[in-house]
Order: sequence, then C-alpha cells, then structure tokens
Amino acid sequence: MYKNLKVVQEQTPLVHNITNQVVTNFTANGLLAVGASPVMANAIEEVAEMASIAGAVVLNIGTLTTDTVDAMIEAGKAANEKGNPVILDPVGAGATSFRTAKAKQILNEVNVTVLRGNTAEIAHLTGEQWEIKGVDARSGDGDVTQLAKRASELFNSTVVITGEIDVISNNKGTNLVTNGDPLLIKVTGSGCLLSSVIGAFAAVNNNILEAATSAVSFYGIAAEKAANLVGDRGPGSFQIEFLNQLSKVTKDDEVLSKIEKTTK
Amino acid sequence: MYKNLKVVQEQTPLVHNITNQVVTNFTANGLLAVGASPVMANAIEEVAEMASIAGAVVLNIGTLTTDTVDAMIEAGKAANEKGNPVILDPVGAGATSFRTAKAKQILNEVNVTVLRGNTAEIAHLTGEQWEIKGVDARSGDGDVTQLAKRASELFNSTVVITGEIDVISNNKGTNLVTNGDPLLIKVTGSGCLLSSVIGAFAAVNNNILEAATSAVSFYGIAAEKAANLVGDRGPGSFQIEFLNQLSKVTKDDEVLSKIEKTTK
Amino acid sequence: MYKNLKVVQEQTPLVHNITNQVVTNFTANGLLAVGASPVMANAIEEVAEMASIAGAVVLNIGTLTTDTVDAMIEAGKAANEKGNPVILDPVGAGATSFRTAKAKQILNEVNVTVLRGNTAEIAHLTGEQWEIKGVDARSGDGDVTQLAKRASELFNSTVVITGEIDVISNNKGTNLVTNGDPLLIKVTGSGCLLSSVIGAFAAVNNNILEAATSAVSFYGIAAEKAANLVGDRGPGSFQIEFLNQLSKVTKDDEVLSKIEKTTK
Repeated sequence: MYKNLKVVQEQTPLVHNITNQVVTNFTANGLLAVGASPVMANAIEEVAEMASIAGAVVLNIGTLTTDTVDAMIEAGKAANEKGNPVILDPVGAGATSFRTAKAKQILNEVNVTVLRGNTAEIAHLTGEQWEIKGVDARSGDGDVTQLAKRASELFNSTVVITGEIDVISNNKGTNLVTNGDPLLIKVTGSGCLLSSVIGAFAAVNNNILEAATSAVSFYGIAAEKAANLVGDRGPGSFQIEFLNQLSKVTKDDEVLSKIEKTTK
Repeated sequence: MYKNLKVVQEQTPLVHNITNQVVTNFTANGLLAVGASPVMANAIEEVAEMASIAGAVVLNIGTLTTDTVDAMIEAGKAANEKGNPVILDPVGAGATSFRTAKAKQILNEVNVTVLRGNTAEIAHLTGEQWEIKGVDARSGDGDVTQLAKRASELFNSTVVITGEIDVISNNKGTNLVTNGDPLLIKVTGSGCLLSSVIGAFAAVNNNILEAATSAVSFYGIAAEKAANLVGDRGPGSFQIEFLNQLSKVTKDDEVLSKIEKTTK
Repeated sequence: MYKNLKVVQEQTPLVHNITNQVVTNFTANGLLAVGASPVMANAIEEVAEMASIAGAVVLNIGTLTTDTVDAMIEAGKAANEKGNPVILDPVGAGATSFRTAKAKQILNEVNVTVLRGNTAEIAHLTGEQWEIKGVDARSGDGDVTQLAKRASELFNSTVVITGEIDVISNNKGTNLVTNGDPLLIKVTGSGCLLSSVIGAFAAVNNNILEAATSAVSFYGIAAEKAANLVGDRGPGSFQIEFLNQLSKVTKDDEVLSKIEKTTK
C-alpha cells in the first residue's frame, strides 16, 4: 500500500478528470491531498490534448450530457493511444436508460483500464438485475466477487466494486479490501474521488491489480483515521478530516492495511 | 417539526435536483446529512425518467441556461404526472430579464408545489417592484406575509419567503418561522439547500404547508445549534458545523421550534 | 491594505464570476467572507445584463467551453462599456492549444483590466516558453518581474503573477508582495479565488495597481493567519480556516503586510 502511495507523492502524476458537477472541488482537493496533480477539462476541442499529457484519465458520468460523454470518449481514446490508464466511474448506471446506454457506449469505444462502481452499477452494465435507486445502490444477495470476475472478463478491465467489502479483480487475480468507514457514504463524491485516486495510483504503476488494490486500501485507511479523530462530530467534520488524512498516511500505517489476496 | 424529520430519515426519499453549479456539492452533502438521498441529473435525455423515480424534484435557476431550463420543465412535468412535489427556487429572478422570464416560463409550464425565494425574487415574479442586486435581495418595506399570500394565490403554490422571518403560505394557512441564524447568509447556497430540504420533507408528507414549515424550522434550528458551537470562529467553520448539525437534530430539539400559525 | 479591504466591506461590491466548475462554491464563499457579493451567471442571454450591474467581472477559463468563452467576451464587453474592471484568470493557458487560443481571443476582444496567472500561464500568453504541466506551473529561471512588465505593456493591463513572490505591475509601477503560505497550493482554486478577490478590490478603487496589490497582500495575510492556527492539521482544515480568516483581517493586521514598491 504505502510503497505505491510514495511513488504517487514522488511523481505527482497529472490526473485528467472529466467528472460530474457535484464532486469537482472535492475531487481536486482530494487529489492534491494525496499528492497528485488534478486537472479538469471537458471541452471537446482540448480533451484529447489534455489526456495525452496526463498520467491517467478519469471518466465519471454522474451528471453526464451527450456533449460530455463525447468528450469522455475522445479523451479516453487519446489516453489509449498513449497507453495511459483510463478509469470509468459509471455513476448511476441502471438508474436511467440514458446512463446505462452511455456507460456501455464508453465501454465499447474506449479500452477502460479500471471500471469502478458499486454492486448495482456494475451489475447493470453486465446485464444482471440488482436493485438501484437514484445513484445509491442497495446490495442484493448475489456474490459480489463473482460479479467482479464476470465484469472483468466481459469488459477486459480491472473491476473495482466498492461496498462493505471492496473487490478488485482482473485476469491476474482478485483481492478483497476491508478498510474504510461507514461515514464515507455520508460524504457525496467519496466513490468518485476514490476513482480518481485509483487513477493517480494507476498512473505510476503498470501492475493495475496492485495499483488499484493499494489505492482502495490507502483510501480506506485515511477514512478510518479520520473517523477516529472525528468521533461523532458529524459528516461535515468528517469530510474535512478525511481530506486532512489523505495527506497524512505514512509508512507506519501500512499495518492498518486489510488486503486479502485470493487466487484467480 | 421532528415528526416530519423522522419520516424523512426513515424513508430516505430520493430528491432529484437540477440546480446551479455553485451549490451542487453543498446541496448533496446537506441532503445526506438530513437523511435524504440526493441525485443530480440535468441531461434532457434522462431527467423525466429520473424525476419519475424521485420523491421530489427541485429546480434551481442559479446558473440557468436555456438547455437546463428545458430539462427543468421536462423533469417538472414528469413529477407532475406522478403527483410528486416540485420545488422551484427562482434564484436571482429580477436580476436579469432572462432569469425573470425563465422563472415565469417554469411557473407557467409546471405545477410548482413549493416556490421558495427571498422577498425580492418572489415580488419580481408577482410583478411587484422590490429592490434586487445580483442574487442578493434587500428587503423593501412591503408586507412580506401579504406578498406570500398573493404569490400563493397567483401561482397556486405553497410559497416560502425566507428572511429574518420566514413566511410559509398556501390556501390552508400561513405560518411564520423565526428559527435561524444570521451566519446562514455568509454560506453560499444556504437558501438553495433549504429548497432541497423542503423537497425532502414534501416527498414524505402530502400536507405541504406542514412539510414546508417543518423543514424551515428544522433548518433554522440546525443553524442555531451550529452557530452556538462555532461562536465567532468564522463562516468556514459555520458551514461545516451546519452540515454536522443537520444530522444531529433530535426530538429534544422540538422545544427550539419557533412556529407561529396564523389563520388564513 | 486594510483601507482597501474596509471599502470592500462597506460597499459590498457585486462581483460577477464566469468561472470554472471546480471553484464556484469556494469562490462564492470566499467572496462572502471578504465582504463582497458574489454572483455566477454564464448564459449568453443574460451575461451582459448581469455584468452591467456588477462592480467587476471575473473571467476564468479553468473548465472553458466555446459557449462559456463566448459568454465571457459578451460579459467583458458589457463591463468595458460601463467602465467597470474585468479580471482574466487564464487557467492552464499553454497546457492545451485551445486554452491558449481562447485566452488570447479574450485578450483581443475585451479590455482586460487585470490579468492574473502563474508564471507559465502569463509567459505562454506573451509567446515565451516556460514549462507547464496541466494547470500547474513550474517556474522557470526567467525574471518574473520583467515578464510581468512585458505582459503589462503587451496587453495594456495590470498584470499579477503569483508565486512565492507575487508581482503586480502596470504602467504606474511594479509592486512585490511576499505574504502567503505554501498551504495555499494544496487548496484547489486558491488562485481563482484570488482573481475574484482582486475583482472585489478593483470594483471599489480606480487605482488598479493599489487595489490589486492590496488584494494580494490581504489574501496572503489571511493565509498566514490560517496557517498559524491550523498548524499541521492538514489541507482540509486549512481550507476552512482560510475562509474564516478572510473574514477576520483587521486594521491590526496591517503590520503583517509585506509590500515592496519598486519604481517603474
């Protein structure tokens, strides 16, 4: 975990985000706290050029429009050409047919390196039925690990499904992470920022399974440390302390990492 | 007050916001703190579908464009068909002729359940002249209660005019609420978030006068509690503590509620 | 410094921002903390009317699109007609050819009163080569003061180049400011908010060199005070305390001002 974080902090990768209007500020501040360098650029005229100089591109459909999805695809293709990682966060896939269709279009036209979502979003993209309400998901009874594996094969991507247990899976293996804190779901964009943090880690490590797993564990550790400090002061204080702690994870916190590696 | 809050927390209504770029994050975090489930979706291709599954739709013209107003009308009509409440926050109506015209267009094409604004915004929509500067209003000398009643009749809506005294009026009666704290006006989007919180309360209570009055009183109580804790630390700290306190109003705070019910 | 701040607080100038999606909330809350009155409006149909009633217009290309740049030019021209100051923040100029071209287009079509950027952004606009990566700049070895003077002559504007030492230059003289704190660069939009604060100061003082210098020094002092209070708690806490301190600079803080006036 820490080894990967340290490389991010040393290399300060530029992470190009085409994301939703709700989380832009939180995402940028979160990436700065981690040690990465955020940039947001949505105009079709410049996304390919920006994506080409970035270490990773993060596509997030939380407040998608046809124009921004076109820009996402342009950026994704430019990153593909450079061999740089593309992260897709299919926020609310399944909530409306437009979101589902546009997420699938991106998956069809761009080689997505990491697909990160909750159970319902990933299930909808694979064509399975899980309950979804708005952009929040209620987990069904299905086997999330199996879903991650199926999605990974289907989309030829590393798939990260976050929830109480986070599953990271690709054709090299499947890891489970149990770091994190329930307060995270009281902060809007905590999933979106994780996708961007995965982008930062993937920008500096070609082993995507390791990069994504480290990012997820790191993120959960920062949340745990923040929750300990904040106690029951509330979600506003947690949000701010979480930004603090994203900048304060050290080698000593390696011991907090809860990663279970499973064989493929 | 608390009875209504409790139902929101139990039912976690989905509140679909088409709102301005300034307040998206604060609105989402505020709704999460209250116990509701926020979603933002602006694309014309999906707003009707999203509005149909939401418990309430909140339309806010703070950074309106022609496209987003078209989406607002589409979403509003979909909510109307389902019989779900629509909240309109006509931010800055009167500041430019475009805003005034677009707010009126929404009122003409959508059955607005609750219209919430400051004195100047509501006055401009009724065709009366009050001073307005940008999106901030300076109260005139007119009788705000009478204005609320006239607007309620004119638009066939529950009208909420917020200021030092908040007025909530419809054809069932008129309530005055004196909860709140002056620090609220130092936090951008405090009015916008209130509109969304009214949406959450209206989503779970068909008695809109009661729902809106409870929401306004609850919101003011949370502000009072936050202001007490923050003292003179400043508007940044108040903003965060306010988010905390939105999640911490309990039955014991019922006694803080300052609602005056007046006969129609 | 304080004299200028006091006038802002007394006159609460309306500052019309057409800015990027990342910093809208932080900018609005920052302007409120300073004592100004923020408004955001991007629609081509209303920007001229809004700019006409505003004390200053701030144009920021951080997440530019062709449409928003068209609106910026419309707003800028309306402010020019009224004789009100226009601030341009060319975020990321040089990072993509689109940004550079659009920033130059604005400079060509609008009389920009204050151009504020980092070294790389300003250098790119003057046609000089400095290294730039995304929207972050790495200072080269060139003489920043000379660059500011050349840019000021070229664009007939007051030019503010921020960095470890801030340079403010126009045909009346050149000032250096050394207030500030390194934590500012861990908060996204700290440069953007400064541009808007310069707008607020310029709205109430026709001596633009003095207005901009006071704004830059004031801003740095608030950062120093916040950094002292926050210590090593982290960037999340600093961001909030900085908003607090923007509202808490007093006459007693005049002594903290570090302004060096140089002859032209």
